[in-house]
Formats: sequence, structure tokens, C-alpha cells
Amino acid sequence: MSHTSTASAVISSDDVEGTKVYDTAGDKLGSIDDLMIDKVTGQVRYAVLEFGGFLGIGTDRFPLPWNMLKYDTSKEGYVVPLDKDRLKEAPRYPSEQRPDYDDAYARRVHDYYGVPFM
Amino acid sequence: MSHTSTASAVISSDDVEGTKVYDTAGDKLGSIDDLMIDKVTGQVRYAVLEFGGFLGIGTDRFPLPWNMLKYDTSKEGYVVPLDKDRLKEAPRYPSEQRPDYDDAYARRVHDYYGVPFM
Repeated sequence: MSHTSTASAVISSDDVEGTKVYDTAGDKLGSIDDLMIDKVTGQVRYAVLEFGGFLGIGTDRFPLPWNMLKYDTSKEGYVVPLDKDRLKEAPRYPSEQRPDYDDAYARRVHDYYGVPFM
Repeated sequence: MSHTSTASAVISSDDVEGTKVYDTAGDKLGSIDDLMIDKVTGQVRYAVLEFGGFLGIGTDRFPLPWNMLKYDTSKEGYVVPLDKDRLKEAPRYPSEQRPDYDDAYARRVHDYYGVPFM
């Protein structure tokens, strides 16, 4: 996968999914597993980080507000202003137990990361 | 897959991909293969319809402006104001030959369907 093969301003969801995510120190946190999209407007609200576990077993899913992610072309991955300690208490769920992303859950996620809930 | 299992206003990209697409007469056109997302804003610009071919071989990809799709809970699929004839001359590409979605291409797609280019 490469995000640099096109000069266009759009990206495929297939390419976003599987993209690695790094903290600001350059350590790999995990990769994007899924995107949560506003049904009506088509706005991507969350990129869902797969993180934790061992050899892919027991990983959890961490919804991150989309605007926390910055794409770093040199890393070919996203950088988020977080580290592993910050994820310890973060909202998460097992992949097969996705919660309702209702207003209360959305607020909890945004509040945790200190990102305004729009 | 069910889009009705949650009252939330967001949907997973994994659930959108693979969702069937119907024309207004109720005929199946194909299914969503991919989403094209504005890199900066996170806005989904196009749902990419997989259509044509035979038994999945030789299908093409047709980018549809996101706001052309209406979800129909009774069909568990999207309905678009198109029919197969309208797709005959529509912008398309083989799955492994995705074009640059640059401004010119975006305008071509929007112009074809008569949807304002924003």
C-alpha cells in the first residue's frame, strides 16, 4: 500500500484499513481496522485502531476521532498525539463486540481524548 | 450484515463495503466495493459500485457521489436514482486500475450524474 502513488486528495477506505499508526515518538501503536462513518453526511467520525494482544490475538479496538490522525508520508502511516500509556484507560472493545456509537459513547470517546464533540 | 441492529447514526466501513445497490425499480445493480474519502476532511466523496461482468469476473468499478445513495432498510441496501442503461456510459475502471481522483476526474463523475461538485 502506498498513499503517495497519487496526487489526488482522496484515499480509498481499503487503503486506510491496515495502515499503521504511530505515536509521536515514532513507536508503532497498531493499525487501522475500520472506519465509522456518519450515515447521513458521509463524514468519517472515527478511525478504529487495532491495538494490544499478542500476535494479533486478544487485540482490542480503540475508536479515535478522525481529526486526531495525521498522515506521515515518510512513515507511510498515521501519527497520533498519544502513547501506549494513554491507551490503557481509553474506550475500547473486542472486535466482535462493537458497541452502539450513540451520543453518550461518542461523547465518552471525545472527552477521553480532549477532542471537541461536534 | 445488518444496518438496523443499532440505533446509532454511524456505520462501519466494513458494513458499507459489500452492501447491495438497487435502482429505483428495485433491480440489483451490484454492491459497494470501496469508499473514496477526502484525505483532509474525512468526508466520504464516492461509494464505488462493483457492477457488470459475469460471476464476479470482468466487473468494473463505478464511482458514485456519496449523496446519490439512499439506504433502504427494507432492502438492506442502497437505492440510487439510476438504471443499468445509465451506467453504460458512466465513468468506470477495472478494479486494479484505479485512476487518480483528481479535480478533472471528480468533475467528470459529478457532471455525468448531474450532481453538484463541491
